[in-house]
Amino acid sequence: MDAEIIAVGSELLLGQINNTNGRFLSQQFAQMGINVFYHTVVGDNDRRLQQAIEIAESRANLIVFTGGLGPTKDDLTKETIARHIGKKLVFNDEALQSIEAYFQKRDRAMTENNKKQALVLEGSEVLANDHGMAPGMVLSKSGITYMLLPGPPSEMEPMFISYGYESIMNKLDKHERIESKVLRFFGIGEAELETVIDDLLVNQTNPTIAPLAAEGEVTLRITAKDSSKQKCEELILTAEKEIMDRVGKFYYGNDNTSLIKELVKELTVRKLSIAVAESLTGGMFQEQLTTIPGAGKVFKGGIVSYTNDAKSNVLGVSGGIISEHGVVSGECAKEMASNVRGMHDADVGISFTGVAGPDEQEDKPVGTIFIGISYRDGNTHFKELNLSGSREQNRIRSVKYGCHYLLNDL
Amino acid sequence: MDAEIIAVGSELLLGQINNTNGRFLSQQFAQMGINVFYHTVVGDNDRRLQQAIEIAESRANLIVFTGGLGPTKDDLTKETIARHIGKKLVFNDEALQSIEAYFQKRDRAMTENNKKQALVLEGSEVLANDHGMAPGMVLSKSGITYMLLPGPPSEMEPMFISYGYESIMNKLDKHERIESKVLRFFGIGEAELETVIDDLLVNQTNPTIAPLAAEGEVTLRITAKDSSKQKCEELILTAEKEIMDRVGKFYYGNDNTSLIKELVKELTVRKLSIAVAESLTGGMFQEQLTTIPGAGKVFKGGIVSYTNDAKSNVLGVSGGIISEHGVVSGECAKEMASNVRGMHDADVGISFTGVAGPDEQEDKPVGTIFIGISYRDGNTHFKELNLSGSREQNRIRSVKYGCHYLLNDL
Repeated sequence: MDAEIIAVGSELLLGQINNTNGRFLSQQFAQMGINVFYHTVVGDNDRRLQQAIEIAESRANLIVFTGGLGPTKDDLTKETIARHIGKKLVFNDEALQSIEAYFQKRDRAMTENNKKQALVLEGSEVLANDHGMAPGMVLSKSGITYMLLPGPPSEMEPMFISYGYESIMNKLDKHERIESKVLRFFGIGEAELETVIDDLLVNQTNPTIAPLAAEGEVTLRITAKDSSKQKCEELILTAEKEIMDRVGKFYYGNDNTSLIKELVKELTVRKLSIAVAESLTGGMFQEQLTTIPGAGKVFKGGIVSYTNDAKSNVLGVSGGIISEHGVVSGECAKEMASNVRGMHDADVGISFTGVAGPDEQEDKPVGTIFIGISYRDGNTHFKELNLSGSREQNRIRSVKYGCHYLLNDL
Repeated sequence: MDAEIIAVGSELLLGQINNTNGRFLSQQFAQMGINVFYHTVVGDNDRRLQQAIEIAESRANLIVFTGGLGPTKDDLTKETIARHIGKKLVFNDEALQSIEAYFQKRDRAMTENNKKQALVLEGSEVLANDHGMAPGMVLSKSGITYMLLPGPPSEMEPMFISYGYESIMNKLDKHERIESKVLRFFGIGEAELETVIDDLLVNQTNPTIAPLAAEGEVTLRITAKDSSKQKCEELILTAEKEIMDRVGKFYYGNDNTSLIKELVKELTVRKLSIAVAESLTGGMFQEQLTTIPGAGKVFKGGIVSYTNDAKSNVLGVSGGIISEHGVVSGECAKEMASNVRGMHDADVGISFTGVAGPDEQEDKPVGTIFIGISYRDGNTHFKELNLSGSREQNRIRSVKYGCHYLLNDL
């Protein structure tokens, strides 16, 4: 089954929002073993939507539409499809009732134009909207399946999970399945990684291996096709072994993990608490730590010592070190890490100091960054980075290097 | 000029990342008065990319490609385009030098496949990549302009701003221009705002008024079309006045500003320094402050007192207050704000404490948040929030409310 995802909405073409629906559905289809060869975004325009449908029909047999099912005049997805495939729009009783219920629940008067949302393609399977008003629908005609979903992700995603997924699965032949696994690497460039596994990439058929670089990280997605799940997993494992033999030392996790998640996991397993002192990263490391529920078990707290005063007065970095080495120095990083660890009575202290940019500092070039690591037993050391990104890239990469160093150091 | 944006990359079709480039470029083109009628996402596949190009040529005269310019074998955008429009790929000396410099700077060995990135379409205008290796390029042939940009947003966005924007502006006929202005509001819901200006939304022709809600904020984009820039600005001003008369008290800034930017601006103008104590927000407020270059002039530093220990031991919140009111309390917020202000000898102290979720705390429901504000003159007070979002939404909105309250309080 080859799918095309068509997102309908002028707000997407004006850049007001991202097409996150395209990404969500693509993830779902990848897991279901359905190829997605194109995404199309088209505005609330009858003629252009019609053209997009014709193109999609020429290259896909599953066309999923998101958006344009609402009550307003510019919502025209189902009207355009109905005319295009020659189907009537008929009122759906359950949909109408749930729309009325929706307004009763909020005791607001239902305006007439809301009824329009209960119109569905005649003969289609109706997908209930548990989080909004406009129902979804699925209809197959001349070998092509049309799926219509609402635009708001808060309605579309649960609708697909609860009803859309199964509706499509029932149409799939069960002969072939796809399994995939993402390996995550840090500290090696995309080109460098690819050179090391070049022969694997050239000769790949099943499984396939796809590299992707993002903010200093590289991932490899291994995807296997076979009728049996077990065979898929064997194919993936064989490729994974070969890859890990060559670049295993840069590997840090797989699938939907991240460096910060791995760090929290590692600290939790080892029952180690951490305290953080940040200068150039301005709290980014701590902010990321605390996005993870339960981080409170390992994260004691920290200091954002953005100014020299804060470094000496709050964090207690000795004036001697600042005057002798400057705040952009390994010595300062070490004292920041060890002092913040002590203040919080934590097992581990980590610190970030350096020049994010745009301007140099203490005659040190933009991208000069020092990361300090300090342990309860007094063992304290630092790593130096020389980055060459923008201010924001340097901050983001410093945080990732901090996780990377500490993970390898523990 | 009608544009189509083609994002090339299988990772997009696998749902590994969002097509944020499509959104960014659409925003740019909207401001430039260029219509964007379609986004297309296609994988790293020569034949399907070729088909996408042919379709785009039939409906656009500006085709912008993002992605597929990298060093690896699956990067084939410029190769496919070169063959399709019958142009050679030739080495660009500056690009080659900057790629070599890129590796020298990091002192890493340059692998051979990186040179591929210096190949450009013969006769094209080359756009330098100041944040990566692969250069962009612009070429016009048979009335169609092809623009090739790298995939990583951290490279593509600055390249477009610095070089791509002007390159396209030079190709535009100057007869009709579009001017637009975005008004930003906080503290009013989208539905509520729309009700208040409903008549303006219904009767709009020129200028048009488009509302958009995002994470507790609402923006209104006013867009005017006319041959004269001055006329456009008059049209916008008239609409703006009408809107501000009705909802001006919720307005905080326009265009690409943000609450945090406005706050830094305000503190700078008033020559006030700030210190920050964060619990549930885990450093997010300080991280956002420090994304703004020059924040060091107003931001002294702060504390992430994530645990009760940190609140009492590091921030010195009295045990009495914690035992009597709990850490999720206005009393605790006030002491956090006043203590962090004192520790940093700052003019203003702000604090965040509360229950982000997923679990309740001290028998207080998720979303119960207290923001403390303290001034050098001793004036200290707090605001209570009752939010109903996810953990991450509650954290993000707390930070925005903090900016909002402080801006109105100053």
